[in-house]
Amino acid sequence: MKRRELLTAAGLGLGAVALSGCKDDAAIAADQSGQPEQRFRWKMVTSWPKNLPGLGTTAEHFAQTVTALSNGRLSVQVFAAGELVPALEVFDAVSSGTAELGHSAAYYWKGKSAAAPFFTAVPFGMNAQETNAWLYEGGGLELWQQAYAGMGVLPLPCGNTGVQMAGWFNREINSLDDLRGLKIRMPGFGGEVLARAGATTVNLPGSEIFSALQNGVIDATDWVSPYNDLAFGLHQAARYYYYPGWQEPSAVLELTINQQAFDQLPADLQLIVRQAARSTNQMMLDEYTRRNADALRTLVEEHGVQLRRLPDDVLARLRELSLQVLEETANADSLNRQVLDSMEAFREKVWAYHAISEQSLYGLRG
Amino acid sequence: MKRRELLTAAGLGLGAVALSGCKDDAAIAADQSGQPEQRFRWKMVTSWPKNLPGLGTTAEHFAQTVTALSNGRLSVQVFAAGELVPALEVFDAVSSGTAELGHSAAYYWKGKSAAAPFFTAVPFGMNAQETNAWLYEGGGLELWQQAYAGMGVLPLPCGNTGVQMAGWFNREINSLDDLRGLKIRMPGFGGEVLARAGATTVNLPGSEIFSALQNGVIDATDWVSPYNDLAFGLHQAARYYYYPGWQEPSAVLELTINQQAFDQLPADLQLIVRQAARSTNQMMLDEYTRRNADALRTLVEEHGVQLRRLPDDVLARLRELSLQVLEETANADSLNRQVLDSMEAFREKVWAYHAISEQSLYGLRG
Repeated sequence: MKRRELLTAAGLGLGAVALSGCKDDAAIAADQSGQPEQRFRWKMVTSWPKNLPGLGTTAEHFAQTVTALSNGRLSVQVFAAGELVPALEVFDAVSSGTAELGHSAAYYWKGKSAAAPFFTAVPFGMNAQETNAWLYEGGGLELWQQAYAGMGVLPLPCGNTGVQMAGWFNREINSLDDLRGLKIRMPGFGGEVLARAGATTVNLPGSEIFSALQNGVIDATDWVSPYNDLAFGLHQAARYYYYPGWQEPSAVLELTINQQAFDQLPADLQLIVRQAARSTNQMMLDEYTRRNADALRTLVEEHGVQLRRLPDDVLARLRELSLQVLEETANADSLNRQVLDSMEAFREKVWAYHAISEQSLYGLRG
Repeated sequence: MKRRELLTAAGLGLGAVALSGCKDDAAIAADQSGQPEQRFRWKMVTSWPKNLPGLGTTAEHFAQTVTALSNGRLSVQVFAAGELVPALEVFDAVSSGTAELGHSAAYYWKGKSAAAPFFTAVPFGMNAQETNAWLYEGGGLELWQQAYAGMGVLPLPCGNTGVQMAGWFNREINSLDDLRGLKIRMPGFGGEVLARAGATTVNLPGSEIFSALQNGVIDATDWVSPYNDLAFGLHQAARYYYYPGWQEPSAVLELTINQQAFDQLPADLQLIVRQAARSTNQMMLDEYTRRNADALRTLVEEHGVQLRRLPDDVLARLRELSLQVLEETANADSLNRQVLDSMEAFREKVWAYHAISEQSLYGLRG
């Protein structure tokens, strides 16, 4: 009510009719708290090249959705990696308020919170549907928010790739021996697991993968899945395309919000941010489900890519090592332990249901 | 601009400061077309009892989301089945404008459009993730909208149960012979298929299922999945709980919108309706994924429910009959044919990708 009171209290001698008209408009313009509406212009920094298909475009989709839903009251401008801050400084930029929003992946912020990687991808863990259910209905999102609360950052899921691929390899993997000495690009828990299996793991930004693989700097790499991998031309740099993506059965993209900026939004704009994140989450999975299917066909039928399944004994050993890595990570920190226990309890019960529903029907597909 | 021009043209001798303040508020209150904002009060009729868990509550969630996102500019009031119109007159009510919105399931409107059942559930078809991708990225939604266009109704997906269960049975199903003469409640394509397998299929509203099963009026029934089935107490009326839910690998709930009312909304409110439907779609699947898992555990551990898998030869025969029913339905109408061909082309390519991703990882779960 402040602005209206100010205007009327100023006693400017407005005629009754004009005042009444003015008050009506002011009432429409006021939000439920009675404050006059404000316009907000927010910056969103990302870890992606400008409009990179699937990742940069998802960030753009979110920004455009918020701007349109709010009819411009909250407009969001997207900055590609390096435009405002480098790819891996998104979290710091949001925490400090340099930008109000960030779009990236939590596993990059392991140095900020040891629990962060759990919120991107867990080897041999839940798929996208299960992860979404854990985050929104199983307490996962509360734990994620707790992980960042001390840094003034509010995270929300904002996109999911679905199951990824195991990666591109320049030599065949027929046994555990073939992993020893393999130079492979793989971030997150997956990289730690492969290191324990004897590989030499490196982390490279997406933009450097192709040339490193082509020049033999690395023997193998993960990236995402057919949609993104085809766009990077990785089939021109490696012979074998391995599945399944044990290291990322679901990969969650992360919206980070500066908590202080969020607190200043009226309730409807806060809800617009939350809802746009949730509908973007659904949109990206829909898009990846379709485009991965298209791109796999293109890779196999047009480019003659050799699909290979990782051998059972290799997968079994990677699974053992994954459990070790997850347990040790959980033991290092009480929040990590809470997160892993929460995920595992949820996973166990949802897998029991999916065994007789999703998995049972998959089994009939032949 | 009309109202503002009116005010200023009235020449009421407002002081410059006051006029400026008043104009600012009026500008904020105007939408991008310059029209003063209007408020809309919409009615939403549903096929569900008031706040029925999972179905009625999803409709309420959508309504509350729209109302809150629009800060009350578009408020939606939900009516349970029978409050304004009966459960199965939702479509007519929306088509005629009695209500602006409806929440129900498309397969109830087979009499309005023969293609409608394809947009709820297809036996042995795609799961929720695949169906969402077909609807939003594979042309499915356009076909659904085409099916209703002549009736002034715009449909959107607004919720998904995920895979359902095959149902509750008072006798074991050990062979195809056991289906002959079985009196079972099952709507949609699934009911047609069981009729061809020799069962006597009936359709009953949810509210009548329990007593029909308990009194022996029927021998078996489908309903939804553990979450909803537990709430109805069906385990108290039948001994065996069968899986997998071959008849509904995904069941889409439907938002219907009166096209003329929708066309009168400003662009931002139209987007709010669309986005709320999409985020509600995600919300319901998240909720069902969690609550089905909880309810299955309760049914088995606390109520001693006997889980049974349908025998392979029964499933194989039901699959053959399903293909017959779908083909005959497609042959009856050119739109039906377009819909089935579109689904099948999408299904084929997405199943090829999911075979090496989702299905491959499911196989490792043991």
